[in-house]
Amino acid sequence: MAAAVTDAYIKPIDFIEESSDVRSGPQPVLEQAAGLIAKMTSGYDERLIGIRVGLPGPVRFRDGAPIATPIMPGWDGYPVRDALSESLEVPVTVDNDVNIMALGEQHRDVARGISDFLFVKIGTGIGSGIICRGKIHRGADGCAGDIGHIAVSSSNTLCHCGRLGCLESEFSGVALAAKALSAAQLDAAPFLAQALIDRGRVTAEDVALGSSTGDATSVGLIREGGELLGQLLAGLVNFFNPSMIVMGGGLASFGHPLIAAVRSAIFRRSAPLATSNLSIVRSQLGAQVGVIGAAFLASEAFLNGSDWVVRCLNKVKV
Amino acid sequence: MAAAVTDAYIKPIDFIEESSDVRSGPQPVLEQAAGLIAKMTSGYDERLIGIRVGLPGPVRFRDGAPIATPIMPGWDGYPVRDALSESLEVPVTVDNDVNIMALGEQHRDVARGISDFLFVKIGTGIGSGIICRGKIHRGADGCAGDIGHIAVSSSNTLCHCGRLGCLESEFSGVALAAKALSAAQLDAAPFLAQALIDRGRVTAEDVALGSSTGDATSVGLIREGGELLGQLLAGLVNFFNPSMIVMGGGLASFGHPLIAAVRSAIFRRSAPLATSNLSIVRSQLGAQVGVIGAAFLASEAFLNGSDWVVRCLNKVKV
Repeated sequence: MAAAVTDAYIKPIDFIEESSDVRSGPQPVLEQAAGLIAKMTSGYDERLIGIRVGLPGPVRFRDGAPIATPIMPGWDGYPVRDALSESLEVPVTVDNDVNIMALGEQHRDVARGISDFLFVKIGTGIGSGIICRGKIHRGADGCAGDIGHIAVSSSNTLCHCGRLGCLESEFSGVALAAKALSAAQLDAAPFLAQALIDRGRVTAEDVALGSSTGDATSVGLIREGGELLGQLLAGLVNFFNPSMIVMGGGLASFGHPLIAAVRSAIFRRSAPLATSNLSIVRSQLGAQVGVIGAAFLASEAFLNGSDWVVRCLNKVKV
Repeated sequence: MAAAVTDAYIKPIDFIEESSDVRSGPQPVLEQAAGLIAKMTSGYDERLIGIRVGLPGPVRFRDGAPIATPIMPGWDGYPVRDALSESLEVPVTVDNDVNIMALGEQHRDVARGISDFLFVKIGTGIGSGIICRGKIHRGADGCAGDIGHIAVSSSNTLCHCGRLGCLESEFSGVALAAKALSAAQLDAAPFLAQALIDRGRVTAEDVALGSSTGDATSVGLIREGGELLGQLLAGLVNFFNPSMIVMGGGLASFGHPLIAAVRSAIFRRSAPLATSNLSIVRSQLGAQVGVIGAAFLASEAFLNGSDWVVRCLNKVKV
């Protein structure tokens, strides 16, 4: 969970990240969020103008509630917007976290001013935010950009969505940890086997560490996942013809091996015309990309609804 | 080649379809178009207000020229807009035909008033037109919607784009004719074998005829292609979350077996939330969908550029 107080130029002047687990259900998580907001705003005299919440799953935007959330048990249909706005007495809007991150990129990072681009978040899950003609494209049911469950493989790995061969069951934090564990147990990967001995488990972070220290199995796992992601993105490049793909989220820290594999698959498999002006880059904002997007939206909503001079506090939570 | 004269309500009052072959190059085809336009407008006193040309391939919209056109030899970079506007002395705009067809659907057929939908043309090639927030999404290089060269199969069929397993090399008029010929030659398909004996060749139309008369091989070929198309569209439904997919073009006349296969793959493979309000339907406008979209665009351009009362002639060519 991350939250920021920003100035009127959407520059974070206070930023906190706390560990939290969406799987514990909405009530404890939203209580933690409200507590964090109270703590962060206590030092400011200005009033809170709005809160934007980004959740890691599909959101029915007009209802302010998550929907069909396989990785968030207990959240399906929970009135997050109404619950938070009642307890904090400010306007609250709820969105998919990847949409908000895409806006953060558009307003503060590499995609500044770009009108058609994709933000791809690779972390516990995989999702994308679509910016079309300068605005978030949410789609008919608010779930546009949900690329984690597109089929990318004919493997028999069962995804938590109940289907086989989804991108998320082949390449995400959880999928990578499972593959790394298999490699460690087979004794084919000394670096990962050592991590298993040292800590009793192997995580995606071990794969990142292995890759950065030249462990071939780790680099191989990242390249294999990047290839699958790149093949999927190649199709989306043909379909949507964006001018940029920005990669963010925890696994984007895999760095060059991941970006190289994704680029290679896209440039090999997309139509040449669709890639003639395409950049594929890593987000530079890191964990702050979400709160910057959220602050931008909160600020925009405030300005649209009021003619006050902006000299106030933006308070956001992602 | 199809052209129409419409009234100010974009209703065709004159419509002609002539056979033409884009592979003969731009000069003879554009001469034929100019001749057709001259013939159609000769009976009207009102002046011609504009021409919209739809070409079956990617178009660099701002240049009014096709680009990277594997199925249109000789057209790459040819200044279609400038050549036609010089010979006919009216404003000309050139677009991808599928974009124009999508607009035709939006203004006159099943997708009327729908803001996020896809028009999928299945004919000699396969392409799609994307309507996003009510407008055509052309993408950074003008080639958005080019789904014919997305990989859908691990087969070794070489596509004319130089890659393997593209949708267009697996399921399009040409691909289907090739598969039907193989089936006829293997003597495994009596209906198609008879067509080969009677006319010395087997076409996609024979497959359509076979399917409508209950020939199992023909139905099987259509269902197989529909399954591949549906799997691809399932991914695009997750990504773009449209509220409708309209299927048009010559092969859409395969009717129920095709639509059923596409629907089945989409509903099996897409995220349930993304299909909760999704309709998958056939275009009802047939060959006129393109000229209606073109007339709409010509009319819109005219109205934006002039405050004249609309009491004039729309003349369009697709």
